[in-house]
Amino acid sequence: MIVGKLYVVGTGPGDPDLMTVKAQRVLRHVDVVVGYRTYVDLIEEILPEDVEIKRYGMREELDRAREAVRLAADGFEVALVSGGDPGVYGMAGVVLPIAVEEGVEVEVVPGVTAACAASALLGAPLMLDFAAVSLSDHLVPLEEILERVRAALEADFVLVVYNPNSSERRHIFEAFVDVLEEIVEEDRPVGIVRNAYRERQSVEVVRVRELRDLADRIDMRSILIVGSSRTRMVGDWLVTERGYSSRTGRNSSE
Amino acid sequence: MIVGKLYVVGTGPGDPDLMTVKAQRVLRHVDVVVGYRTYVDLIEEILPEDVEIKRYGMREELDRAREAVRLAADGFEVALVSGGDPGVYGMAGVVLPIAVEEGVEVEVVPGVTAACAASALLGAPLMLDFAAVSLSDHLVPLEEILERVRAALEADFVLVVYNPNSSERRHIFEAFVDVLEEIVEEDRPVGIVRNAYRERQSVEVVRVRELRDLADRIDMRSILIVGSSRTRMVGDWLVTERGYSSRTGRNSSE
Repeated sequence: MIVGKLYVVGTGPGDPDLMTVKAQRVLRHVDVVVGYRTYVDLIEEILPEDVEIKRYGMREELDRAREAVRLAADGFEVALVSGGDPGVYGMAGVVLPIAVEEGVEVEVVPGVTAACAASALLGAPLMLDFAAVSLSDHLVPLEEILERVRAALEADFVLVVYNPNSSERRHIFEAFVDVLEEIVEEDRPVGIVRNAYRERQSVEVVRVRELRDLADRIDMRSILIVGSSRTRMVGDWLVTERGYSSRTGRNSSE
Repeated sequence: MIVGKLYVVGTGPGDPDLMTVKAQRVLRHVDVVVGYRTYVDLIEEILPEDVEIKRYGMREELDRAREAVRLAADGFEVALVSGGDPGVYGMAGVVLPIAVEEGVEVEVVPGVTAACAASALLGAPLMLDFAAVSLSDHLVPLEEILERVRAALEADFVLVVYNPNSSERRHIFEAFVDVLEEIVEEDRPVGIVRNAYRERQSVEVVRVRELRDLADRIDMRSILIVGSSRTRMVGDWLVTERGYSSRTGRNSSE
């Protein structure tokens, strides 16, 4: 009996150098690579010439997942690629239920999620408790998303925003800024990272009061990081301070 | 003039294969590697024989950071290693203020944070909005931590818990379970991953009602992931469902 295997591979922020060693090795030995066109293009330089590549459009997650599972069930070694980490708003949760139904073996290969990539470029805004929300309302009602934004800000989490804006849901970005302006002080710093570790990368830190006017610079390939009450500029870096200088200097890092 | 450089390098969950290609390359070309003994030992196999290694104890973050900055100021290329991602409860935020003061150039090299590593082993629990908290109260008052736990659970975030338990702060774990039991239903699934991608790795999914009795199996090297209301077991996997099957199948992945 031929037994295939499905790898769900996180390709990190975009630069193949920021994939894990394991992710690169998996992509170099599988029979087929399946993925969203943009992410496949970003990592194509490391793929062997003879690998079969199946590219899909942005909103064809279920099609991609079904094709990857079908190929693995047919006995192939298959890599389903997912930008960032495949478990954070990625492909792992889409494909696992289908793979279980078809009895296909799956391994999830983690990656550098966009929150960590953006954080590295900004400095260290995620040094204390943080929350991640996606402003895409395709599968989650807007009211529920905004409720979580509100709760995170009120509890003084650093807030990481995935999918912050797009031309077709500008109203969500506006509603998000409304909540921000209501809850945090107007000079709270907000990091905006666009195209992290890709062409046309931009990194800037603005204040909450400036955010509404910057909507045009914020899109689906951007990540916003809203600081907590302990987030400050240190030189050019955005840092959430844990109080080492003023306290005992004792703590446990990750 | 001799100009050094400081790299703050995320070494991922522990297996050198889960470091990024860039992190491995940096560690192979620097003059000195500085870090907490446990993390240095995990990645020592990939270091060149002639690199200088400076190992430190668990609670010597400031000493490590100062030594790394001093060496870079002296003209060396230095890697300060940090488990997981250096920006998530890691070394980036500790060292940046010191480096800015000394005028040393810094680059943060992101890594696979423990939340993503644990998630990959469990399945896909982070498919919707999630919050990360650390239960270490060395630098943050316990009341503030528990308030964030409460806010995250009430807003239906998936909750990732770093540093969930240790022999010296068992009372915090107990207080955390008190809040859990108060807010979420008793059969809400909780993933427990210990030693992710290291020796003696263990992965299990339990229910909130069982958690209190499992305190002995949960330590500083464990990560807990408490599901949201949409988190389910799918076969052996823990998955937070985004509703693809019941809705339009349209959504944007990371």
